[in-house]
Amino acid sequence: MGAQPVKLGIIGLGRWAKVLTRAAAKSDKLKIVAGYSRTEEKRKAFEQEFGVAGAPDMKTLLSNPDISGVIITAPNEQHLPLATEIAKAGKHVYTEKPIAATLEDGIEIAALEKKYGVTITVGHSARLMGSIRRIGKAIEAGELGRVAFMEANFSNERALELTPNTWRWYKAKAPGGPLSQLAIHQFDILHYLGGEIVEASSMASKLSPVGAEVDDQSMTLLRFADGKIGYVGSSWTSPGIFSVRVFGQKGLMHSETDFSSWDIPSKLHLSSALYIQRGKDGYGKREDLKVPESDMFVAELEMFAESCRTGKANELTAHNGNVAVAVVNAALRSIDNSGQYVRIGDILDEARSRAEARKVNVA
Amino acid sequence: MGAQPVKLGIIGLGRWAKVLTRAAAKSDKLKIVAGYSRTEEKRKAFEQEFGVAGAPDMKTLLSNPDISGVIITAPNEQHLPLATEIAKAGKHVYTEKPIAATLEDGIEIAALEKKYGVTITVGHSARLMGSIRRIGKAIEAGELGRVAFMEANFSNERALELTPNTWRWYKAKAPGGPLSQLAIHQFDILHYLGGEIVEASSMASKLSPVGAEVDDQSMTLLRFADGKIGYVGSSWTSPGIFSVRVFGQKGLMHSETDFSSWDIPSKLHLSSALYIQRGKDGYGKREDLKVPESDMFVAELEMFAESCRTGKANELTAHNGNVAVAVVNAALRSIDNSGQYVRIGDILDEARSRAEARKVNVA
Repeated sequence: MGAQPVKLGIIGLGRWAKVLTRAAAKSDKLKIVAGYSRTEEKRKAFEQEFGVAGAPDMKTLLSNPDISGVIITAPNEQHLPLATEIAKAGKHVYTEKPIAATLEDGIEIAALEKKYGVTITVGHSARLMGSIRRIGKAIEAGELGRVAFMEANFSNERALELTPNTWRWYKAKAPGGPLSQLAIHQFDILHYLGGEIVEASSMASKLSPVGAEVDDQSMTLLRFADGKIGYVGSSWTSPGIFSVRVFGQKGLMHSETDFSSWDIPSKLHLSSALYIQRGKDGYGKREDLKVPESDMFVAELEMFAESCRTGKANELTAHNGNVAVAVVNAALRSIDNSGQYVRIGDILDEARSRAEARKVNVA
Repeated sequence: MGAQPVKLGIIGLGRWAKVLTRAAAKSDKLKIVAGYSRTEEKRKAFEQEFGVAGAPDMKTLLSNPDISGVIITAPNEQHLPLATEIAKAGKHVYTEKPIAATLEDGIEIAALEKKYGVTITVGHSARLMGSIRRIGKAIEAGELGRVAFMEANFSNERALELTPNTWRWYKAKAPGGPLSQLAIHQFDILHYLGGEIVEASSMASKLSPVGAEVDDQSMTLLRFADGKIGYVGSSWTSPGIFSVRVFGQKGLMHSETDFSSWDIPSKLHLSSALYIQRGKDGYGKREDLKVPESDMFVAELEMFAESCRTGKANELTAHNGNVAVAVVNAALRSIDNSGQYVRIGDILDEARSRAEARKVNVA
């Protein structure tokens, strides 16, 4: 190799910036060289902990010619304005999931690619987990035969701990509760594994004793363009679960990820499981597979670095990020309409119109 | 004990009659003493294989004063006329699941109880499996805390083997495909574990390459009276799966039954799995539980025998059998109405009206 690591900036120096900066340190393909937060204290603490120089303002960071891409780990509402500034400066953009607080914002972010000739990477890292990639490869290689059916679950106990002081308490901030906070990851994974999602139908409930505004139980059915169907469940009052099961005519694969080690992805494979049932065989004749070692945070940052180097988009596209949000929005509309199937294309088209109208109003 | 075994007759001497007669032989609480089939050959073969005397006609079997109950293992369309004859003869009725070919028939079967002072037992045996009972006990004992969420799957490869010569090829015979053939078992299990089911929403698809009339993929969402929600998935183009997962605030239980040994329930525990995750813990900290040994066919027959002895209904009631069919019908209607939630109470009320109208027409 011998190639120089790609140099990156990072904006928003909270908890997630730390997770990503730690991941970045494991890769020789990229280096985070500058950080910015509006709070001087945070900049100093970050510099002290990670040796990443704090920039005194955004402008300084964005005018640094060494930096070819910038990571946004700021709140969702700030993704669009920040991404716009970064793209205007000719830098590639990485933004955390979800792509934005609204689908209109997400669509405007996607439009930055053409407008400013930069790439957008959205941090839907879960699809990069070793076990999910292994399932993807099995599907691609035809090892499972025609896939007809997929089930996924991502649950945790969050709703048992909500208080009115936490933003997740509120419908407007965390619509659908675990639907927008957890299920969205599985929507992206099933999109990766299953291809285009056509429509969604959903059911929600609120059962947590804490009395929060948001729903805390979420189940969504999906129809894919090729006719297969999928389910994503997400309980917010449960022990930690992250599972994906794919049903093919020749085989079934089941992955159970130990969510308790989520933030340390390099250890996930030690306490997780992956198996395959072939032919007609039942659970008793499953074959345990080795859970591939992987680090989804290193993997997504290296994808971003590669895009910075080549100027070519990677698979964590703005479009995929928008589809994940559109499925959430379709599920929310379905819940408001007694379970009616809602088309993802309609949700995207409407958001495009709203984004257009907004631009006209501004002009 | 020392009590005499309850003596039973059996009508319809096909494959399932053999499974139940073998199960009956393992119990000292009941004895199958007479069998009837319209085909003399079948009667003779059955007598030879099991030592159960063949009755020359229904009347002879039903007028045998030793017999206190009769098992129906005839096709679904015959459940109502046979159950009516049996009840008129003052014998208790056991009928295989589903309770009947139509919900109207099922409602008339339920009405036989009051009319003739007999009990009806419907063979929804899956809820009697050791692992399902263990989950039920955990819920009842509060071991899982408030249960908010349940997932179940029952899948097999049936649709890959359908031909126009098999009844399951046809929509009218096997409506919804795996929905009416497999998911119905899980509806009964979730009804047992979760209480009253209020409404259902469903999605189906047809993907098998054989070209049958019926759908071969089925996913249904359920809302329970206490606000919890549930999912039942059923693929007909998959390796064999039978799994139930229950999510509580204090713990989660997951049961994976090796479906390949379904017909030999006494061996199910050897190749199946049951575990619990407590508190916030993830999959990595699950505790494996012993899968309780059980034989659901012996268990259901002993429940029936007990009802014959005492004249009191057991939990495998006609009402529960009708609810399972009503959930299937609600799911079918939801599929025809773009996923709309359909109320189980409406489906039952309409069937009651149709059953009433039918009686009036006859009179």
